This record gives sequence, structure tokens and C-alpha cells, in this order.
Amino acid sequence: MTNKLKGSFTLPGESGYEDLTLKMAQKWGADVIRDSDGTQLSPEILEAGYDIYSTVCIIRDHNDWIRKHPSNMQQTFLQSMPKIAEGDFLSIHLLDGYFTQQFEVNQSKESVELWQVFDRTTNMEVPKRLWNYEKELDHVVIKTTEPFHEYTVNFLAYRKWEEINMYNHVTNNWTSDHLIPVDPRSDEAQEYLYKWMDNWCKEHPLTNVVRFTSMFYNFVWIWGSDERDRNLYTDWGSYDFTVSPLALEQFKKQYGYELTSEDFINKGSNHPTHMPPTKKLLDYMDFTNQFVVSYGKKLVDLVHSYGKKAYVFYDDSWVGVEPYSKRFEEFGFDGLIKCVFSGYEARLCAGAKADTHELRLHPYLFPTGLGGAPTFSEGGNPARDAAVYWNRVRRALLREPVDRIGLGGYLHLVEDQPEFNDYIEKVADEFRLIKSFHAEGKPYTLPYKVAVLHSWGHLRSWTLSGHFHETYMHDLIHINEALAGLPVDVKFINFDDVINGALDDVDILINAGRAGDAWSGGDNWEDDRVISLIFRWAGEGGILIGVNEPSALNGYKNFLRLAPVLGIDIDRGSKVCHGRWQFTVETVDGLIPEGAGVKGKDHVFITDGKAHILAEEGGLPTISIHDFGKGKGIYLSSFQVNNENTRLLLNLMLYAKGDLGKALYLTDTADTECAYYPNAKRLVVMNETDRDAETSIKTSDGDIHVALKPFETQIHELS
Amino acid sequence: MTNKLKGSFTLPGESGYEDLTLKMAQKWGADVIRDSDGTQLSPEILEAGYDIYSTVCIIRDHNDWIRKHPSNMQQTFLQSMPKIAEGDFLSIHLLDGYFTQQFEVNQSKESVELWQVFDRTTNMEVPKRLWNYEKELDHVVIKTTEPFHEYTVNFLAYRKWEEINMYNHVTNNWTSDHLIPVDPRSDEAQEYLYKWMDNWCKEHPLTNVVRFTSMFYNFVWIWGSDERDRNLYTDWGSYDFTVSPLALEQFKKQYGYELTSEDFINKGSNHPTHMPPTKKLLDYMDFTNQFVVSYGKKLVDLVHSYGKKAYVFYDDSWVGVEPYSKRFEEFGFDGLIKCVFSGYEARLCAGAKADTHELRLHPYLFPTGLGGAPTFSEGGNPARDAAVYWNRVRRALLREPVDRIGLGGYLHLVEDQPEFNDYIEKVADEFRLIKSFHAEGKPYTLPYKVAVLHSWGHLRSWTLSGHFHETYMHDLIHINEALAGLPVDVKFINFDDVINGALDDVDILINAGRAGDAWSGGDNWEDDRVISLIFRWAGEGGILIGVNEPSALNGYKNFLRLAPVLGIDIDRGSKVCHGRWQFTVETVDGLIPEGAGVKGKDHVFITDGKAHILAEEGGLPTISIHDFGKGKGIYLSSFQVNNENTRLLLNLMLYAKGDLGKALYLTDTADTECAYYPNAKRLVVMNETDRDAETSIKTSDGDIHVALKPFETQIHELS
Repeated sequence: MTNKLKGSFTLPGESGYEDLTLKMAQKWGADVIRDSDGTQLSPEILEAGYDIYSTVCIIRDHNDWIRKHPSNMQQTFLQSMPKIAEGDFLSIHLLDGYFTQQFEVNQSKESVELWQVFDRTTNMEVPKRLWNYEKELDHVVIKTTEPFHEYTVNFLAYRKWEEINMYNHVTNNWTSDHLIPVDPRSDEAQEYLYKWMDNWCKEHPLTNVVRFTSMFYNFVWIWGSDERDRNLYTDWGSYDFTVSPLALEQFKKQYGYELTSEDFINKGSNHPTHMPPTKKLLDYMDFTNQFVVSYGKKLVDLVHSYGKKAYVFYDDSWVGVEPYSKRFEEFGFDGLIKCVFSGYEARLCAGAKADTHELRLHPYLFPTGLGGAPTFSEGGNPARDAAVYWNRVRRALLREPVDRIGLGGYLHLVEDQPEFNDYIEKVADEFRLIKSFHAEGKPYTLPYKVAVLHSWGHLRSWTLSGHFHETYMHDLIHINEALAGLPVDVKFINFDDVINGALDDVDILINAGRAGDAWSGGDNWEDDRVISLIFRWAGEGGILIGVNEPSALNGYKNFLRLAPVLGIDIDRGSKVCHGRWQFTVETVDGLIPEGAGVKGKDHVFITDGKAHILAEEGGLPTISIHDFGKGKGIYLSSFQVNNENTRLLLNLMLYAKGDLGKALYLTDTADTECAYYPNAKRLVVMNETDRDAETSIKTSDGDIHVALKPFETQIHELS
Repeated sequence: MTNKLKGSFTLPGESGYEDLTLKMAQKWGADVIRDSDGTQLSPEILEAGYDIYSTVCIIRDHNDWIRKHPSNMQQTFLQSMPKIAEGDFLSIHLLDGYFTQQFEVNQSKESVELWQVFDRTTNMEVPKRLWNYEKELDHVVIKTTEPFHEYTVNFLAYRKWEEINMYNHVTNNWTSDHLIPVDPRSDEAQEYLYKWMDNWCKEHPLTNVVRFTSMFYNFVWIWGSDERDRNLYTDWGSYDFTVSPLALEQFKKQYGYELTSEDFINKGSNHPTHMPPTKKLLDYMDFTNQFVVSYGKKLVDLVHSYGKKAYVFYDDSWVGVEPYSKRFEEFGFDGLIKCVFSGYEARLCAGAKADTHELRLHPYLFPTGLGGAPTFSEGGNPARDAAVYWNRVRRALLREPVDRIGLGGYLHLVEDQPEFNDYIEKVADEFRLIKSFHAEGKPYTLPYKVAVLHSWGHLRSWTLSGHFHETYMHDLIHINEALAGLPVDVKFINFDDVINGALDDVDILINAGRAGDAWSGGDNWEDDRVISLIFRWAGEGGILIGVNEPSALNGYKNFLRLAPVLGIDIDRGSKVCHGRWQFTVETVDGLIPEGAGVKGKDHVFITDGKAHILAEEGGLPTISIHDFGKGKGIYLSSFQVNNENTRLLLNLMLYAKGDLGKALYLTDTADTECAYYPNAKRLVVMNETDRDAETSIKTSDGDIHVALKPFETQIHELS
């Protein structure tokens, strides 16, 4: 191994533990010390010669001010719990079922004007003259109902408890004042927050980097009154928490049309990221993004004026920040920080346009980890946790560089964790070494340009909506996680992109989702230009990989609109009397790794009898490949990421391209992966299991045999 | 047991086996002897004093005539296999992929006028001027195509091989002439067949009953060219095989609008019975039914004029006969014969309006049974088969009487089957005894009127479309089979019936199906009158049982339109970010029989937290009950019929009505059932397993304890 590199590491310092702070900074090669939620940095740390990060959550901790200016509280539309009329009159109490520590009804005139009452049995709005709001009781009374129809009220509620603060109170028994989130939409709020930020900068002369957590608006997180159903609605990518009468008024001025409460409530479904966005939603997101960038930039400029840098945390109140939007660079942020559990999150950070990309690794230095399991407390094994997380992230970092890594939390917790401390030292060293290889030139990739096609395209590259454990039910997050470390180029495109020529440089196109969802594409598949462009592209040699219900749409001959390419379709009921092709499973040497597997899906059928069935479950094809002109269609009835299935995905690409068993710089087992840096002449080989592993790699120097310890990284120099 | 009754039994006689015929007639108490496909009755049998049934399939065995009058061959619309244009020109060979021994293109002018070419990528018809038919090659050439769009041609084909005959040739290696089906739609065909029938009657003076097999049109059965995909499309209830240019011309005259080929082809889905019928389809079915009844009646009258009776077989070419239509009685048939594998088929026969209802029991006297397993040949066990089939049918016959039973096939096969012969003797005796109880008065039923709600209503009572093994993938056939022997009143209603007050006498409403299918109801759920009528009915005490995706429809707040009653809904993707209620499974004593079970269904969720979850699988509710006003909603995520689940269904009804553990005349184990005839004062108890069983029954005489041998029927006299 080369000489030890230093730097590129952010350490959470802790006052009262000055010696430990400086000792660990030395051991882990830190160049930056940060504070965390709940920790302070003492002068001894601040003045030790390290760069200093300080966290700022600009929209909370202003309770005195907001209590005097309550119309600046953040808001959201809510739908009352549904109620069925038994007669011709109905009274609905608005907040029934909601967590009243989080919400209160916005009773103002401009709020009530936005409310709507719906007969959900007919999908018709009840005219305003037929209902009224009884303020004292928080009741809406519908004066003329159809008996035995179901009614709901869309209303506007203030949010009186910032959700991250609320979560920590409820989950971790915090007891301080409930922090109220400020909406910076009004002039008075903007002036107040600007002054506050200015003052903060003055009071923190030793801070080099202000780390914003994040900007103004949290992802939506609506709580219920019942502990059996606390989480009513949450979506990391959704804009529900940005709304206010003022915002809607400004929207109308700018876009020339009005948004209604129902445009947000959408029959109670809201607009989760997992469903295809409507034109109105995209307009509203653009409108909000514009505001967040424009006011955000003022704050960033202010920070810069004090000679400090401004980084932004890519989580929590990140809504409207959109690091993959065209406006992101306008903020002027100096860095982007992402906390990562998974490889795709490392790619999400690495792929955004920013000067500095930094990863906050897991585990955080907390007694208890996410999901409630112990980390730095009795029963925890933080060194093993760190290895497992690093194992997920490492393969992504080999494909696309980031600039820095770091930790968060309470440093004192590592005092008696020598194994953890040694492991982090190793991780930091590995990270810096890999970074140095990237600095010399890109790693070798197969000559495959992979495009993932879904409704959001580039804007939702890599992530679906938040962390893996929040979106595991979608095949695409599994695909993305597999792709994050594969030696292929990846881009994310939407349906407009297809029409605008995005397939021109694409070798492999992936569409993976459930019928009607954002990932499959829903109504976007109505556009016959998209269909025929993909037919043409596949006919000319493109490889389509469809997972679960790709290109699914009702109303056409093929439920999977791309069925002619795949040779596979799915019966929605109307084909139940149509016979099914008999088939035998074909075996291709070296294609399906031992332990790989795809879950079967009901109602899948073979269309023209020409698909080669590579695997089946219960008589249903699960993996198939079908010729289409010079190209191919590959169908997978589902996809679950693990080492074996990740290799399966790669092997299917190699097989379809005629490269299976021939390509260089690939390990020959699913439990190991490698990356080759031609300029640095270094081959990095990883064991991705907690067992010993051996593998061989075809290189231009001939085959290289490697034996690896659990999770080990080895670096070999090639000639 | 009382004195042995005789009669009500139809025996298949066989010439050459006169002694056997008369011996078995005696043993089984037959009063009728019949011929079968492939058997003759000799004078010795014909003149032995028994009534004689003769089978007539009126539309086949006229090859000489049809070859001289080929335009009277039966026809069907077919869709060419799809093809993708690569340039601006496409040639499609029509019969590619079809079994050319079954089909030939109808090349006549009036046929080609009905053809349509579709761009299936856009769903648009290609104008007729842009394509032409090249007769010599059976090609349609599309002169102007959009590159990389998919095209199909709807065309009309003659059917040159009657499908039942074709099946027996191909499956059982028959080698005789291929019988060509005659379409009696034209005047010349009607005249010819009428004369033929007249002549037949003259030539068969000893025949008492002409058994029609059945009328004119077989259910659709389209074969493919490839043995791996022989069965392209089949549906026992579908009208595809009734079409012809003449029929469509007559339809237009009568209904004032034109049907196109696409009205039949429907993007290649056709119109399986399992999908909700369109208005056009219902019109066309009505039109065909009218013709079949009117010409059928002429033939029946002719038969009657010879002093013979006319029975109709409720299978094979039964299409257009529709024993549950309002016109059925107009035929003047004297009897209806149904072959039965299952209890619901016995109810299907029993429930139709006819003077005589007769069941053809299984196994048929054939060497090989349905599905290819041996029956009366090496390795077969016909006595056991008979017991299993009788076990299914018996419980239905206890609820609703039929008049006769009988067998079919080759009698010589029973020569060395004393066990089978004894068992049939027992069955015949049991049947006659049960029939005698019915004659004294109806069996006791619980005071529950059950209505099954689906798109077809009464017209498709009991059966979905054919036998159980053809429709096992639908929950409803399992429900129907369970209901067939339960002590409740059952009716089948459609959505118009609901609007017209059909719920007024209903205690329990069942809706069981997959989203969009005929059994769930599809677009019928758009009608808010239906929704609010069911809400009202349930609110006033009705018990709704929803299975799988009951009342499912996109576009509304609730995907299951009746979710407010059920307290359960299903997420189609838009609720994936909405939290799920935590629940614990509640146990109700005696409700769920040991061994009962319901398969879990993805995406099921609890709506208002008030549903009582009675069973779950993988964290998803599978059985739940929810209060709604004075009524209840019961949800089952699936239903598979067996003894335990049949009892589960009954128990859920009893529980919802407050009668669980209290009702009289029910066995206390799932493996046994009973029926009580108050007028006859007889309690019939059945063991429905192949093991010994014991059970207790609460009666007005107190508890009765019974021990039963495998499949045994016991009859107890009550005071």
C-alpha cells in the first residue's frame, strides 16, 4: 500500500471530549471538525487548526418570532376522514384522525376560500353554497347531501411542530419546546430569517462552512392521532409541505392558472413520487424550486460575504432544493452532503453538480440506529455495522468519485470502541486511495450505455424517494442499487427525452415498475411516438430490459406496450381464456449465478412463442429473452438486489451483447466485484460477503487469482 | 331404509351387449336406455320395454350437403398474428399461427367487406383504401404503414371441422371424415336440416326422446398451428362461433346499427365471459338467442309431432340456447340434461326452468377420463372416481332437486367392475330417496337470502363459463361451489337488478372477482346509484362479503368502491406512501375451522382502523369483518373451495348474523354436512371425506350424534 493519505474526512467533535476529538481527528486523518444536533464545539476544538462545519436549520428555532407572526407557520392541505351521509345533512370535524400536536386548522378567510368539499361517491365537488365552516367547532357542515354518499373536506392546516423535531421528541423522548417551522414565503419572514442568518454568521467567526439542514421545506410527513396508524402519509420527494395561500396566489400570477386544494389532495392519494407526475404538479414543483433557489441563494451569498462556505445537506427539508434540477447550480453552494445507507445514494450525491460531494457514513455515532437496533450501546456491534454499510457504498464509490466522507453524532460514544475506530481508519484510508485512483482517470467500464426510463427521468436519478428501506417494495430501487456498482455508464431519462433522441447513445434500456406507477410510466405509454421509437431502437440492436410491469397501460392490444420486444405480456383478465404457450426452461452456461432468483408473477404469458425462457416459477416465466430485429427484449418478473442477482443483471447484459464469458476486468464469482483504473494501473478487488472469498479476473495481463478476507478490499498493480 | 325405489335413471345401452344392458338396467333401476356417440341400440334393447333416448347433433354429419353449399359452413372472426412494419409497407398472411385443418379464409366479397386492419400501436383503424387482399396468397397488403407500428387484420374464416369432432380426432385418434358444422342461419340450410330431422324421426320410430347435442353453435374453441400453443382461445359461454355476413346483416336490420369485426375481435381479447359484457355484446347475444330459440322451436315442434319428447344437452353446441334466458321456455323442450363434475353444475341444471332436469354423472363409461387419467382401463378405479364425483354433487342435490340421473359411454366397460356397479346402484338408490324427500317438501334452510352480484346476474347463475377445472382461477367458482350445498337461498343478480330493487329481500350480498372482470363488475361500479343502494342496504343490516377485488374500479377515492363497508381497500400504487394500520389478529371461538385458510393478497390495507382482522398472511389481512351501520362488511382476500373453507364461508355468515353456534340442523365438523326435510322428517347426514367421520347435529329433538364411513350418506328419522 502507498503512503498514507490524509484529509477528506469530517469528524463530529464534542465539547468536553477535546482530547478524544483531536486524537480521533489524527487517527482518521480528519481535516474538518463539525458539530451535530445536540453537540457544541469548545474553543479548544474550534481553534485546533481544523476547518469547522456548523449545522444550521434555518426554518426552526424561531418560536418567539413565529408566535408573534403565526401566519408564517408552514402549512399543508389535509383531507378530512371520509364520512357517509345517512340523511341529507352531514357534519364533519376536520382534524379527526390527525395528530393535533402537529396540525391546527388555518381558519383565515384566504384559507377557507381554498377549501373544497367532495362527494367521493360521484367524484363531484359540492358547491360552496351548500356547505359552511363552523369555526368554533372546527366543523364543516354540508347542508344538502345525497343519502348514502361519502363526503370529504379538503382544508388547509398549519403545521405547528417541525417534523424532524417532532419525530425525535416522540421517538427518542426529547422534551424541549416544540419547534415551529417558519415558511419563508412572505416578505416579513424572509427579512427576519435573513437578519437572523446575518447575525449567526457574525456570532460564529470560527465556522468555515455553514452546513444547511437543508433549506426550507421538509418532505411530507403527516401523522395520525392513533398510535396504531401514526404515519398517515410520508414521501421524501413530495411537495405537500410547501403550500400556503400566498404561494398559491403567486403561482396563479406566474403560471396563469389556479391550483385548487384537490390538485394536492387528489382524492386522498396526494401525489407520491411513485406515481407519474401531472403537468400541474411539475409546474408547482418548478415554481417552488424557483423560490427555494432564489431565496436560498440570498442566504448563501450572505454566508459567502462572511468568507464562509455554504454546504447543503441532501435530506430532511431538502424539498425544493432538487440537486438534479437545472437551477441547482444557481444556489452557489460549495458542497453537497448526503447521508448514505446504500450504494445508489452515493451515486445520487456523486452525480449532482457541486464542487464538493461529501458522504455522511453510517452508523451515526448514536446509541441506537435507525429501526431501533442498538449501535453504540449494549448489544450493538458498530464495527460490523460500519463494514456492512461500507460494503454497500464502496462499490458505488469505485464507479463514481466523491470528495469527502465523514461521520455524525456524539463522538464520546467511540471512546471504548477500538475495533470500530480501527475499522473507520481503514475505511478512511481506502476511501482516500480510491479517490486518488479516480484523480488519475476514470475506471474501465464496459462499452454499455444504460438508460433507466421512468416518468421523472434525470430529476429522480438513482433514488426513487428516499432511502432503500423506505422504497424496497419497488423493483427499480433494487435495480438502481445493483447498477450503482456495475461497470456500465448509467443515465436516467423520461419520456420526453426519448422523443428528443435520448436513445441515440443508449445500448441498454431499463423500464422497471408496477402498472401505472412513475417507474413503469403509466399514461406516458399512450404516446405512440415513444413506442415506435423504442421498437425502432430495439430493431436496430437495442437491448430492452423490462421488469415486473414495464410499459404497462390499459386500453391497447398489448397490456405491456413493449410486449412485441419482450415476447411477454401480462393478462389483466381479458386473456384468461386464451391458451398459454408450453415452454421448457433453457439453460445458458454461466448466465444465472447460483443463488440468483426472480419471484414469479401471476398472469405473465408468452406472446409469440419465441421468447427463450431462462427461468420459471410455478409454471410462469420469470426470466426470458426474446429476439427483436437486431436487438433483444429481456423480461424479469421482479428484481431483488443481492450479490447473486446483481451479477445476474450484469450477466444478462453481457449475454444479450454477446460478451458473456469474454469481457475483461470482471470477477468470476457473484460475491466479489472489481474495478480497474487504467491510468493508475490499479485493480481494486472487493469481497462483498462476510465470508472468505476467492475469485479470478481476466485482465490484459492474463488471469489474476485473488483470495479475500470477509469484506476485504485488495489493490493490485497491473502492468 | 325404506323400500327400494325404481326409475329416474338413464342407462347407456350397447348393441352386442344386450344381456348386460338389461341386467344393469335392472340393477340400477333404469327406466330409460340411451345410445351414445359411437354406440347403437339393437332391436332387442329397443323393444325391451324401456323408454329410449337417442342423441342427435343436428349441425354435423352433413358433409355431402355442405360441400355442395359451402357458404353454409359455420364461421368466426379471427385476428391475424400481429406484425410490426419496418418500412412503409407490410404484407400479412392471414392464417399464420392458426390450425389450418380448422379454418379457411372466407374470401367472398361480403366477407372481405367486414374485414378491418388496425394499427395496434395507435389503436386506429387503417382506412380500407390503404390495404388490399391478395386472394391467391391469403395476404393482406397494407400499402401505407407507419414504420415501427404494429398491425393486425381482422378477417372472417370458415370453420371446416366441427370442434368436438376435431377434439376427438386429435386427442383420441379418431380417423373418420372431418365433420363440417352447418350454420342454420340461411333459408336453404334451415330447409335442409328440417327435412333431415323429419326424416330422422321417421327412421327412428322406437325413440321416445330426442336428445339434442345441443342446438347449433359450439362455444368458441380456436386452435393454433403450433402444438405448444394448440388452444388459442376457448370460452364455454362465448358467441364467436355464431357469426356470418348474413347474421350481421340481419342484426343490423333488427337493431338499427352495425356490428364490426372489431366488435368481436376486441383488440385480440375477444369477449370472454369473464369480462363484463358490452351493450353490443348483449344485443348480439340476444339476437342469436332469438334465432336459436325460433329455429330450435321448429325442430322441437317437429319432434313433438312424431309423439316424441325433445331434451336438450346443456353443453357442447349450447351457445344461443341459454337455459337461464327469458326465452328458454319457448323452445318447448321437455327436459334439460347436464353433465356434472361439481355441485354447482347440479344447481345450474336444477335452477333452469324445464319439466325434467337430468344429470349425466361422472365418470363416463370411457377407458380414459377427462384429463387423460385411466378410468375403465388398467390403473383406473371407477368406483372411487364415482364416489368422489357423487360426493361433490350429492350436497347440491340435497338443496335443490333434479328429476333424473344417468350415465353415458360404453356399457361393456362395466362388465368386470362389480364394485363400480354396486356403487352406482347405491347412488341411484340414494338419489331416488333424496328425490322422494324433496317431493314431500323443501329442506330446511337458514333464513338467509344470499345474492351473488356480478355483471351477468341471473343469465350466468352458478357457472362462470364451463366446468370447474376450466375456471378454477376465479374465486367466484369456488364460492359458487361452496354455496351449492349450503343451507341458504341463493340468487344471482346483476347491477341493473340492484337498481331495480333486488337487494330488498337479500340478507347477504357476495361480490367476488378480480378488478375489471365480470365477476367483480368492472365499469358497472361507476354507477353511484349502485354504490349508495348497497351503502343503504348494509347500513340497514345487510352483510356484504367481498372477495379478492370486490367492487374494484379506478378513478375514485376508494379503489374498492365498497371500501367503506368493508373497512378494507387495495392500493394500486398511489397509496404506497400512506402508512398502514397496525393490527392484531382477533380470535373468535368456532369461527375459523381448523384447516381453513385464505391466501394473502398484496397491497390490501385497512381503511379506518375499525375492521376486525380474523386472519392474516405475511402481515396482510386475509379475513376481516367491519361494522357498517347495522350491517357488516366481510373481506376475504381469496377463496378456495374445500370442506374447511366451505364451512368457513357458512360460519362467517352465521357469525355476521349472530347465529354462530346457535343454528339448528348443522353438523359440528367441516368434513360433514347435513340437510333436514321437515315434511319428510328426515335428516340426511353426509361424510364428505374418504375417512371415517363423527359429528353432532343440533336438532329440535336435541343433539344427534352420528358416525359415518368414508363418503357415507346416513338418513335419520326425526320426530
